[in-house]
Amino acid sequence: MLVAQILKNKGSQVFRCAPSDSLTAVAAMLDEHRVGAIVVTEGEKVSGIISERDVVRAVCRHGASALERAVRDYMTSDVVFARPQESIDELMERMTDRRIRHLPVCEADRLIGIVSIGDVVKAKIAETEHEAETLKAYIVSG
Amino acid sequence: MLVAQILKNKGSQVFRCAPSDSLTAVAAMLDEHRVGAIVVTEGEKVSGIISERDVVRAVCRHGASALERAVRDYMTSDVVFARPQESIDELMERMTDRRIRHLPVCEADRLIGIVSIGDVVKAKIAETEHEAETLKAYIVSG
Repeated sequence: MLVAQILKNKGSQVFRCAPSDSLTAVAAMLDEHRVGAIVVTEGEKVSGIISERDVVRAVCRHGASALERAVRDYMTSDVVFARPQESIDELMERMTDRRIRHLPVCEADRLIGIVSIGDVVKAKIAETEHEAETLKAYIVSG
Repeated sequence: MLVAQILKNKGSQVFRCAPSDSLTAVAAMLDEHRVGAIVVTEGEKVSGIISERDVVRAVCRHGASALERAVRDYMTSDVVFARPQESIDELMERMTDRRIRHLPVCEADRLIGIVSIGDVVKAKIAETEHEAETLKAYIVSG
């Protein structure tokens, strides 16, 4: 299964914020939409990504006052992306190697979706079930 | 691959806190150990689990003052466990169905480890590679 197929199933919605937004605003978005990361954009340009982990780290290191500070102070600027034609296995390796749980998906410099580690696991289960069905049909027909 | 094998590779260490600990203390543990969840225990009994998501939600709903409150106010009490003899595939399904990323592992009511969605994905990659090697060896020998 490819990234494009995952996006076809889950949709292309990406929750975004601006680098100048406060951490409080980001925490509210994470909570409201039940997602683990928000993509930080300036117009169409991706400037970074900010995750639940980044918010916890900010609060831990700078106390409650961190919540009033801007996203740009705590986001990850070195964003790791996925491309629509990549396979689930490639994403699994990248997430494991980099210890990350969210990959924004870009095509021709345009943000077209985001894939979480949960999406990847769900897709892997579907792929495995499909393979088992195919094998079963093959055996029955043989 | 079974849960027992994952624990053999990653070790049985589980970061714990008490229900009376503050969220600030938990945020510090999450940050220091670079983990996504801490198991809440009273003696040997597991009372709950508290994750990065719970900390973000607490801060979002009750503001900075949430950080001074006790873990018991924000932890998940209805803990979903894994058992050592379960397979990776079973864990993947449970994590997807329940939308959770950490499963404490219990054996005879004793906490013997914790498995994250990252551990499961890493194990799945290893399993897939092993299967490919086995298939290759079979074909070469055939």
